[in-house]
Amino acid sequence: MANERILDVVDSPADLKLLTDDELSILAREIREQIITTTSKTGGHVASSLGAVEIILAVHSLLNCPEDKFVFDVGHQSYAHKLVTGRRDRFDTLRTFHGISGFPKPSESEYDVHASGHASDSLSVAVGLAKARALSGGTNKIVALIGDAALGGGMAFEALNYIGQAQLPMVIILNDNEMSISRNVGALMKHLGYLRTSSSYRTTRDRVQEAMEQSGALGSALMHFGRNAKESMKQFVIPHSMIFEQLGIVCTTPVDGHNIHELKEMLSTCLAADGPVLMHVVTKKGAGYGPAMAEPTRFHGTGPYDIATGKAIKKSAKAPSYTSVFGEALLNEARADERIVAITAAMESGTGLTSFEKEFPDRFIDVGICEENAAGMAAGLAIGGRKPVFAVYSTFLQRAIDQLIVNNALMNLDVVFAIDRAGLVGADGPTHHGMFDLVYTRMVPNMRVLAPSNEAELVNSLHTALVLGGPFAVRYPRGEACGVPVPDKPETYEPGVSRLVREGSDVAILAFGNMVEPANEAAAALEEAGLSVRVVDMRWVKPLDTEAIRRAAETRLVVTVEDGVVEGGVGEEVLAELARQDVKAPVLTLGIPDRYIMQGAPDFLMHELGLDAEGIAAAIEEKLEAL
Amino acid sequence: MANERILDVVDSPADLKLLTDDELSILAREIREQIITTTSKTGGHVASSLGAVEIILAVHSLLNCPEDKFVFDVGHQSYAHKLVTGRRDRFDTLRTFHGISGFPKPSESEYDVHASGHASDSLSVAVGLAKARALSGGTNKIVALIGDAALGGGMAFEALNYIGQAQLPMVIILNDNEMSISRNVGALMKHLGYLRTSSSYRTTRDRVQEAMEQSGALGSALMHFGRNAKESMKQFVIPHSMIFEQLGIVCTTPVDGHNIHELKEMLSTCLAADGPVLMHVVTKKGAGYGPAMAEPTRFHGTGPYDIATGKAIKKSAKAPSYTSVFGEALLNEARADERIVAITAAMESGTGLTSFEKEFPDRFIDVGICEENAAGMAAGLAIGGRKPVFAVYSTFLQRAIDQLIVNNALMNLDVVFAIDRAGLVGADGPTHHGMFDLVYTRMVPNMRVLAPSNEAELVNSLHTALVLGGPFAVRYPRGEACGVPVPDKPETYEPGVSRLVREGSDVAILAFGNMVEPANEAAAALEEAGLSVRVVDMRWVKPLDTEAIRRAAETRLVVTVEDGVVEGGVGEEVLAELARQDVKAPVLTLGIPDRYIMQGAPDFLMHELGLDAEGIAAAIEEKLEAL
Repeated sequence: MANERILDVVDSPADLKLLTDDELSILAREIREQIITTTSKTGGHVASSLGAVEIILAVHSLLNCPEDKFVFDVGHQSYAHKLVTGRRDRFDTLRTFHGISGFPKPSESEYDVHASGHASDSLSVAVGLAKARALSGGTNKIVALIGDAALGGGMAFEALNYIGQAQLPMVIILNDNEMSISRNVGALMKHLGYLRTSSSYRTTRDRVQEAMEQSGALGSALMHFGRNAKESMKQFVIPHSMIFEQLGIVCTTPVDGHNIHELKEMLSTCLAADGPVLMHVVTKKGAGYGPAMAEPTRFHGTGPYDIATGKAIKKSAKAPSYTSVFGEALLNEARADERIVAITAAMESGTGLTSFEKEFPDRFIDVGICEENAAGMAAGLAIGGRKPVFAVYSTFLQRAIDQLIVNNALMNLDVVFAIDRAGLVGADGPTHHGMFDLVYTRMVPNMRVLAPSNEAELVNSLHTALVLGGPFAVRYPRGEACGVPVPDKPETYEPGVSRLVREGSDVAILAFGNMVEPANEAAAALEEAGLSVRVVDMRWVKPLDTEAIRRAAETRLVVTVEDGVVEGGVGEEVLAELARQDVKAPVLTLGIPDRYIMQGAPDFLMHELGLDAEGIAAAIEEKLEAL
Repeated sequence: MANERILDVVDSPADLKLLTDDELSILAREIREQIITTTSKTGGHVASSLGAVEIILAVHSLLNCPEDKFVFDVGHQSYAHKLVTGRRDRFDTLRTFHGISGFPKPSESEYDVHASGHASDSLSVAVGLAKARALSGGTNKIVALIGDAALGGGMAFEALNYIGQAQLPMVIILNDNEMSISRNVGALMKHLGYLRTSSSYRTTRDRVQEAMEQSGALGSALMHFGRNAKESMKQFVIPHSMIFEQLGIVCTTPVDGHNIHELKEMLSTCLAADGPVLMHVVTKKGAGYGPAMAEPTRFHGTGPYDIATGKAIKKSAKAPSYTSVFGEALLNEARADERIVAITAAMESGTGLTSFEKEFPDRFIDVGICEENAAGMAAGLAIGGRKPVFAVYSTFLQRAIDQLIVNNALMNLDVVFAIDRAGLVGADGPTHHGMFDLVYTRMVPNMRVLAPSNEAELVNSLHTALVLGGPFAVRYPRGEACGVPVPDKPETYEPGVSRLVREGSDVAILAFGNMVEPANEAAAALEEAGLSVRVVDMRWVKPLDTEAIRRAAETRLVVTVEDGVVEGGVGEEVLAELARQDVKAPVLTLGIPDRYIMQGAPDFLMHELGLDAEGIAAAIEEKLEAL
């Protein structure tokens, strides 16, 4: 029975309580193997999930979930949690359509407290739970797990501010791996760095490091932790210099985050406290898997990979990604205009700015997971005569809508919001889809909004935004571009002028951004069925091409297609424009329906939503029949 | 020439440099008299502006603005700044239409760096300016002025985090008056409180206090500051326990914020530093005017008042305010359902929660100016079985849209966003108008949105939200309600069912919230001109009453009226519904146009925008003629 795993008999956290610390350490190894085996096929957030295995086992050994509450920040480190809370058998469906979510998801399991996905929100949720418990007279335990980078977000600080005042019992586990997605920035990290010079931290870190250095690839790489289980538990201290202590939150000395015994002892002490406690845990990102430890940034979120080497298994790409095209285009613009400054909120690599940082380190700003400050600094830079470009995922810019409205657009500043991951993003699911940016950008006065339909359009759109000035949003999808050549010398688009893709007279499809290609394919299919279909790449979400809209109404059916929510989407502005023109035409507004969209491959999801060529053609045929 | 004022010869900050410290102290007195004289007629942010007079004079004595940059946080404390930067002659137009803005406004003066209005953004703007300066090789000085309460906002912390890391020279003046709009909350304030136990703070505070205690009403009340000008300047210290120091920002000992000499000396030392410095200044809110010192909360933002007594000069109200009706209604609901919890972000009085706090102190949560944490805690409370009601101004909820989307609506939690100050708010202008909430609430899946048209509808709407559960927004305007009786026993509205206000067959007006009353008046006027006009109180922004929309299309003209932006507004959803129903009807969508709206009396602004009865009737007549 050499292959029998402890993991196979763990059906719920209750089973963990029956295990010795040594058995839990073996279980941790099995969980790592499972995470690596699965994610090598599905992709996923490997490095952070490997780093948090022992923490999760320690917490579930001591808590009685779901009565007790284990609140994850961001939540992509929760794979071990999923494996020990009854989802082992479905774990191979991780991040697939109708499969296990890559994040905690209450509708999936009663052990998942909240739908996480965005950084820095766990402390607010946890203290809200603590307050609810105080009001209802409950006695359950509340533990939040937050990484060092997420702790730098404003929302987390706001929560600490309340936690320190309210003094409600809860344990905040600070998972300190000395890096966020790429690297930590900000003074708080420096402060943690200062703590890291303390001897207790260094001892802990060296022990973690030493154990990790023995590791290679899977198998030989996987570590046995817990060897130092007999070490005496660290005493509680209130380090003299800790910000948290000054906010009224007791802090512990650093604990080895891969030592089950040490974790359990410290956590049980923390759980007995009658106020908020921050338990400082030192972990290694990618712990136990050599390639992930060597390249934690690449293994932050990865696609399928070869287990032995860690090398990505890539589908042959027909084209570069939109992200890389943007990064290259911005670099070219920056070479020509020294005023250009690039800003990211902890997404240097994700937004394609790695080369930019190398070539223009002074003009590259990484503020950490602080979208509000990023947008506010953009305003200051613009007032100071610079041309800031804030490259940010659509879903994360939701954190800075007020700053877009008040600090940037109101003053009509020369700021570009380069909105990556617009539309459906795929495996990360509902917290990460970029469904709303078309609405929240176009509702704002002074904003101009471009939705490039391919990589050449992206290059020109960025150029247009930088040349014309004023507050601009340029939004483009995740993933591979269309494979068209990018212009050597970008052109400047005239505001509110669309691009005719295909002429036709029966139906006019007004398509936005990523939807132009499927719209054109749909048109081709409909033409085979005898319909003459015009396709317009609208290009401008704001201002709209009113003449193209007027002309569209001369056909039998106007169709708008966007990869954002219909409710408040740009299709509705086309309707408004037709109403202003007093043109009565049948209009079909296609887009993302009024519900949250689960995870799945983007192509598949778009098919499910009827937003691929086939779906668009079918919707048009159906509508024409009904007219 | 007894009545000749120094103020009358100060045309720009350069003139301040010619004055002695004693003359500056006299000028401070004159500025106070001017602020009190003007605001007693116009209303305004009296307490904070009186508290910041000497700080502003000291800064402008030492800086060379506009080359140097003086960045205000929130900005409602900037009246003295306005008076010494060439706007003395127009100061009597404060907060009126086409008059001087109550906040810094770059289009008004080159001395106003950014359009402020929302708390906690000054540090981001300032460090953005500092970075721009570093890139352009400039040498100008940068000073940000931020209050203790605004410093608790997440955005400010995010900026501190960057400032501490980047070490760009700038001075942050912390205006510590030991209170925010109502009172400071949060652990940061406790931390400041800890600092306040230091002897240097107490000495400073006692001196401030003593001088202030001599003051009464205007005249005898106005203080001469600067008496202790010969006192030795406080030394720089790096208090052992300060959060800021740990973030890499040097801090000073507390300075008397009403002592021109002391302020200037300390500030000139700070300005010479080669990194970021936080200058801790102790002030008294309402300084120099007895009634404002006695009631700083009431004098935070006030209408016209009697100078001698400080008593508000109120227009006789025909009805209670929406805010007070909400507060009373929530109290009644809370008496019947112990699960209800009220949350505010530093707006206890402004959102009508004062009585609630008195009766249910445990179920009242004030998180400080931390909208993100408020919305995140609401989620935690709801997960924990409570029924949180987050009462918040429309413009400030812009800070928590992501939390609304990700933490609340995605999980379909029982949370009520009680959105006060929806629509145009008046004298506070573009940063405070609630123009966007109809868009950013309705775009979110699972949300239901109610826009009550009078105080009875508000009571029922709140009840409906609490009874039906799920994520709800109830949005209502600032100011006086309609004067209709409120129900003793509130009713539960059926989702998507509107209320017919007036039957008619030529035109159908679908009106939302605050626009029902003017729409009905417009209908009455049009009926006198021979038109039969239906008026529908749509009540539900989401889900819409699709049957009412269908019926409306049977008339010659469908009109939608809302007090939010047209771009993305609910009028566009009416168009979308008509398109879905394949009904072709002329539609007129009335609402706030696609530009920022300046300050002015709400009635006047609505008239200017054609959103009063007269404007609505005129627009309808014009449209009918054009058909």
